[in-house]
Amino acid sequence: MTFKKEQKSSKKTAQPRTQLYEEGAQRLKVQMAKIRHKIAVISGKGGVGKSTVTVNLAMAFATHGHVNSVGILDADITGPCIPKILGVKGQKLQGGPPGIFPATGPLGIRVVSMDFLLPSDESPVIWRGPLKMRAIQQFLSDIVWGELDFLFIDLPPGTGDEPLSVMQLLPEMDGVVIVTIPSEVSQIVVKKAVTFSRQLNIPVIGIIENMSGFVCPKCGERVDIFKAGGGEKISEDLAVPYLGKIPIDPEICRDSDKGLPFIIEHPNSAASEAFMHIVTQVEEFLKKKAKLEKMLQSGKGGGKK
Amino acid sequence: MTFKKEQKSSKKTAQPRTQLYEEGAQRLKVQMAKIRHKIAVISGKGGVGKSTVTVNLAMAFATHGHVNSVGILDADITGPCIPKILGVKGQKLQGGPPGIFPATGPLGIRVVSMDFLLPSDESPVIWRGPLKMRAIQQFLSDIVWGELDFLFIDLPPGTGDEPLSVMQLLPEMDGVVIVTIPSEVSQIVVKKAVTFSRQLNIPVIGIIENMSGFVCPKCGERVDIFKAGGGEKISEDLAVPYLGKIPIDPEICRDSDKGLPFIIEHPNSAASEAFMHIVTQVEEFLKKKAKLEKMLQSGKGGGKK
Repeated sequence: MTFKKEQKSSKKTAQPRTQLYEEGAQRLKVQMAKIRHKIAVISGKGGVGKSTVTVNLAMAFATHGHVNSVGILDADITGPCIPKILGVKGQKLQGGPPGIFPATGPLGIRVVSMDFLLPSDESPVIWRGPLKMRAIQQFLSDIVWGELDFLFIDLPPGTGDEPLSVMQLLPEMDGVVIVTIPSEVSQIVVKKAVTFSRQLNIPVIGIIENMSGFVCPKCGERVDIFKAGGGEKISEDLAVPYLGKIPIDPEICRDSDKGLPFIIEHPNSAASEAFMHIVTQVEEFLKKKAKLEKMLQSGKGGGKK
Repeated sequence: MTFKKEQKSSKKTAQPRTQLYEEGAQRLKVQMAKIRHKIAVISGKGGVGKSTVTVNLAMAFATHGHVNSVGILDADITGPCIPKILGVKGQKLQGGPPGIFPATGPLGIRVVSMDFLLPSDESPVIWRGPLKMRAIQQFLSDIVWGELDFLFIDLPPGTGDEPLSVMQLLPEMDGVVIVTIPSEVSQIVVKKAVTFSRQLNIPVIGIIENMSGFVCPKCGERVDIFKAGGGEKISEDLAVPYLGKIPIDPEICRDSDKGLPFIIEHPNSAASEAFMHIVTQVEEFLKKKAKLEKMLQSGKGGGKK
């Protein structure tokens, strides 16, 4: 995996490491300043549908007036899934004069994922933490993301290297959306994710309870396969907003495998309706935040006059 | 988190780091030599039921003539779930004259997990790779596991620090059991886990397809929520044994939340029957391996005479 080096740095051969580091940090700042909102999607436990939520969040915002202005960073270095779910698998990152460009998905969504850099599906990325950190930093600093309204970042489960790196590299992040399934086992791990975000001073936008109940398509019987109500319980216990629940729908898995976001493929399903309700709340959060920032700024401005 | 230091090393204050390292490696060798079989349970993607499989594998072997002779190492440092699923949550690791002892679960199963060392469920472990590696090494070398027939190691998803550390620390491992759900998204990531094990020369015992189909408890309709057949497909594609599939059963989630392994709680369910079939195959694998090793050893012995 190689990224374009800046002209300036390629001239000097024995450049001190700290200078290279500072240049990287500077590039990251310049690139990220062009992106208005950054939201990370995290979970404690894996397999709760985090990548599906990320892709559908991105699609929802793109359809709500942000075509060609949404990006997704797949920060799961060892298990990247976004390209498959968004239907852009097989694309490659293209290099041009200003640097490396993201792949482009439906509605002009720009995507960067380790998956684009691997020779085959079988290729594992057997990397320890420091290398993963470096890759994420390069994804943020050396990719020509361009001007975007939103960047959604899909983080691998846990509170290890990747989430920590992203939080530290993007302290200006708007907040995190936390995804869980209703089970108690998942709740325990999700609580850690909430504390993790708080300790790193990143606002928690709210919790989504995914895979919440299943309705038999034949007889209409509702079965709580992974129990129900866990997301709401955590939000109460830890005083974080509850964004809503998404029921289990076999179409979601089928759509993800086909690379078709389910809110576009099955807009009238109960799952899509639940999802769009969640999107509205994320939009509300951002509006409130913007209002607050404006007030603070005008307050500051007023003080200077 | 502190572990008992050896008497010898505590006397010297300025001991060189390499010597400490070698002592650790030596302790690990001594401890692990007392455990006959080591099997890791891995997956590419999270949330596929890896921890549930680990706990039930351990219980199955304990009931098959190995009471008080089975151990579980929960190597998921940032999202430990084993204590909850095995019903030993709230226990603490106890220290005694020879060192730190594992917690004890049903049928005398010995358990070590980061969960026992955390002050509360909300406490996240915000550690980068090197610290996680060190913790796993200490779990293997500084815990008094004692004589065991089996040690099952539950690894977090992916091919990063924890799986890599365990594979490198235990090259004598019997093999890995790989868990997947049927979806294509999961298949892609599981393929990486197979290649990962092969590159590290750890035998793949086989693949389990978990959450394979759901039967409505009211009308009997079968719904493939996460599709079906994915595990079998990977095993064919990559020429690794297929151990079988476990259907979705809401009781599994309920039992896990209650800390009751489902093969003990619901031994006559379709899921338990499917699981016991998988256990038989793991036992077969170990028998064949032992036979082969015996043949090789007697061959060697004969050559020396």
